[in-house]
Amino acid sequence: MAADQSPQAQSLNTQLSKSASPSFTWLHRGISEIFPNQPDSESPDENLEQRILKSDRPLRIKFGIDPTGTEIHLGHSLVIRKLRAFQDAGHQAILLIGDFTARIGDPTDKSEVRKQLTAEQVMQNAQTYVDQVRPILDFDTPGRLEIRYNSEWLSGIDLSKILELLATMTVGQMLAKENFADRYKKETPIYLHEFFYPLMQGYDSVALEADVELGGTDQKFNLAVGRDLQRHFGQRPQFGLVLPLLLGTDGTQKMSKSLGNYIGLQEDALTMYSKLEKTPDSLIKSYFELLTDLPLDQMPENPRDRQKLLALEITSQYHGGEAAEAAQKAALILIQGNTVSSDAVPEFSLEGIQFPVKLFYLLSAAKLCNSSSEARRQIQGGAVRLEGDRIQNVDLTFESAADLQGKVLQVGKNKFARLVQ
Amino acid sequence: MAADQSPQAQSLNTQLSKSASPSFTWLHRGISEIFPNQPDSESPDENLEQRILKSDRPLRIKFGIDPTGTEIHLGHSLVIRKLRAFQDAGHQAILLIGDFTARIGDPTDKSEVRKQLTAEQVMQNAQTYVDQVRPILDFDTPGRLEIRYNSEWLSGIDLSKILELLATMTVGQMLAKENFADRYKKETPIYLHEFFYPLMQGYDSVALEADVELGGTDQKFNLAVGRDLQRHFGQRPQFGLVLPLLLGTDGTQKMSKSLGNYIGLQEDALTMYSKLEKTPDSLIKSYFELLTDLPLDQMPENPRDRQKLLALEITSQYHGGEAAEAAQKAALILIQGNTVSSDAVPEFSLEGIQFPVKLFYLLSAAKLCNSSSEARRQIQGGAVRLEGDRIQNVDLTFESAADLQGKVLQVGKNKFARLVQ
Repeated sequence: MAADQSPQAQSLNTQLSKSASPSFTWLHRGISEIFPNQPDSESPDENLEQRILKSDRPLRIKFGIDPTGTEIHLGHSLVIRKLRAFQDAGHQAILLIGDFTARIGDPTDKSEVRKQLTAEQVMQNAQTYVDQVRPILDFDTPGRLEIRYNSEWLSGIDLSKILELLATMTVGQMLAKENFADRYKKETPIYLHEFFYPLMQGYDSVALEADVELGGTDQKFNLAVGRDLQRHFGQRPQFGLVLPLLLGTDGTQKMSKSLGNYIGLQEDALTMYSKLEKTPDSLIKSYFELLTDLPLDQMPENPRDRQKLLALEITSQYHGGEAAEAAQKAALILIQGNTVSSDAVPEFSLEGIQFPVKLFYLLSAAKLCNSSSEARRQIQGGAVRLEGDRIQNVDLTFESAADLQGKVLQVGKNKFARLVQ
Repeated sequence: MAADQSPQAQSLNTQLSKSASPSFTWLHRGISEIFPNQPDSESPDENLEQRILKSDRPLRIKFGIDPTGTEIHLGHSLVIRKLRAFQDAGHQAILLIGDFTARIGDPTDKSEVRKQLTAEQVMQNAQTYVDQVRPILDFDTPGRLEIRYNSEWLSGIDLSKILELLATMTVGQMLAKENFADRYKKETPIYLHEFFYPLMQGYDSVALEADVELGGTDQKFNLAVGRDLQRHFGQRPQFGLVLPLLLGTDGTQKMSKSLGNYIGLQEDALTMYSKLEKTPDSLIKSYFELLTDLPLDQMPENPRDRQKLLALEITSQYHGGEAAEAAQKAALILIQGNTVSSDAVPEFSLEGIQFPVKLFYLLSAAKLCNSSSEARRQIQGGAVRLEGDRIQNVDLTFESAADLQGKVLQVGKNKFARLVQ
């Protein structure tokens, strides 16, 4: 569990990163790109590794978030984990909370009464965010974390400075940005204030004197604007460190709350474990790489073992090792909702059963109840579930064994059986 | 002379404009366009005449100027004259001084150390501007003139409001503006802050609650942005009144200081008269229409008379009737510089003169001096000019009559002769 890493281990990492032939595995693992990565006249450090090695002070690593009250999931965690990796290497993470922008909302959003959050709501959202990332980041080692709010410099910015910021960019440069270019081509309106958001984000880098800014692949343009503005204001431009998008549990689309293919950082240990335990094999490697620190060449060979290790490891990160192990055990016996995947469910063969068959008879035959009459009482009492769905119809009848194949029948919390033909 | 118009006359005009069948000649004379000019759902007044007639208060007529220290010439006077016409019809002229924008300068101007004017310089320039337009506008009648500075609302504007302004326009709308469209097509950089200038100008209209804004043809887009912003902020949109560009004294190009084809409002009466007296016939009608209130059907038939009347009338506006008449008389007898055009210079025939001839002999022969020796003294004393050029070479000799044909010889301020073969 990363959050448990001892100060000794962190200090060791720091020493490593400054030694003659340092390992930069922590830096490069799972990233999409670092830019610039070639020497040029402006970047005498040549690349980020060189800057890290030459620096006589911790670097300032910026990551910006919008305190809009979003539930954070594993898809968001990649960047925060990388921020932690910088902390562990002795650098200073800066969690930048875009409170000013959140308070303004989007002036063009006409779908409802304009959503302007109050300062209080924004602070509350920010606190929620901080609470969610607490298991990932190092909040305790002095000098490793700075939490800042961009209202600090944006609320007092005057028109003169704003015009100066605007004047650093041309319309052509903005329209070269992928998202804008597409919309301009399709004649979808681009409102002028949208051009200002990358500049605000870039100005944040100036205000924070960031050395590195982290972001997803959709942030690359904005990270580059930060470089331009720092240059404009006489600062050494930051490096952009780009992280890939995490696919959701469905293995096909970007992890997203609205697609339902996500795992929230604040889900309870059992839910988190149970979801992760079903990670499709096609995703396992990338999840290992992006969501854990485990060496990739030590992944178990057996797919089922890989799933379990992944689930145990990630659950540990957010709930601690003990809770994760308890979740693993509980997942073996608890069948609930549609979460039917445990190996440990005893099987009951339907071979000797004559169809059509009544549910209460089946419960008795499978020894989940002692008698048909107890079975009827349990059904009426709401204790019986099939594949997690509660059944209260005492007369429910099944027509064929095929209808039941592989399903789990359960009475109360402790008795269950997987029906097989 | 407009500035001399009596309060009685003004009051009469006001009454006229409110009477049942008012004359709107003052409104329509010499303008390029008023928009909107068709009834639409947003403009229940249908057109400006209707709004004027229905209004129970004086309308607020905005004209914005940049206090950059420019010398104002007749090309600028059109708009200010129209502003005066509104004043005379009982409305309120608002002279808006863009002091905030002038103080900022253009952030992209790298040609020299960025020109940021101090608040003092800006106020001084503004005062110079006001001094120059004083002969045109009615500064005295109470309630007819408001002088405002846009720093009043722009210096305190915050980022939230700025984003709101930006969000009212799309990139497509901005790039539809002629100037921007051309530059975008030619891939000439358009800096983002340039998009904000029309919005600032438009926001000025909101702050001033303008009913009408005046501007040259190059201002049409900005006047329209003012309408959009007023609508956005729940105000009734202003009318845009567009005035044409004035051609310069060369009759071919827009009047401009840099082209040297201009007449400054602060030029002395004689200079102003002398320049105007040479107005090419092709320009006479437009100058009458745009720069005077004289009825166009009463223009003199003789071209020379037209020139004189025009010169007298316009010079009167800036220097008063007496000074204009004095200038007219002086122009008849005073020949200076290259300004040789007066009808009233007596001719002296060179027929009896033997060439080559000495200058002092010629002066004596033409009776400009009483003797050759007086002529020599006058030459040495610097009183002798040929075509306005002072001559001090006592031994100057002319080889042939052709060299002198048509030229004006002058001694002191009162004696002169046009030499003819």
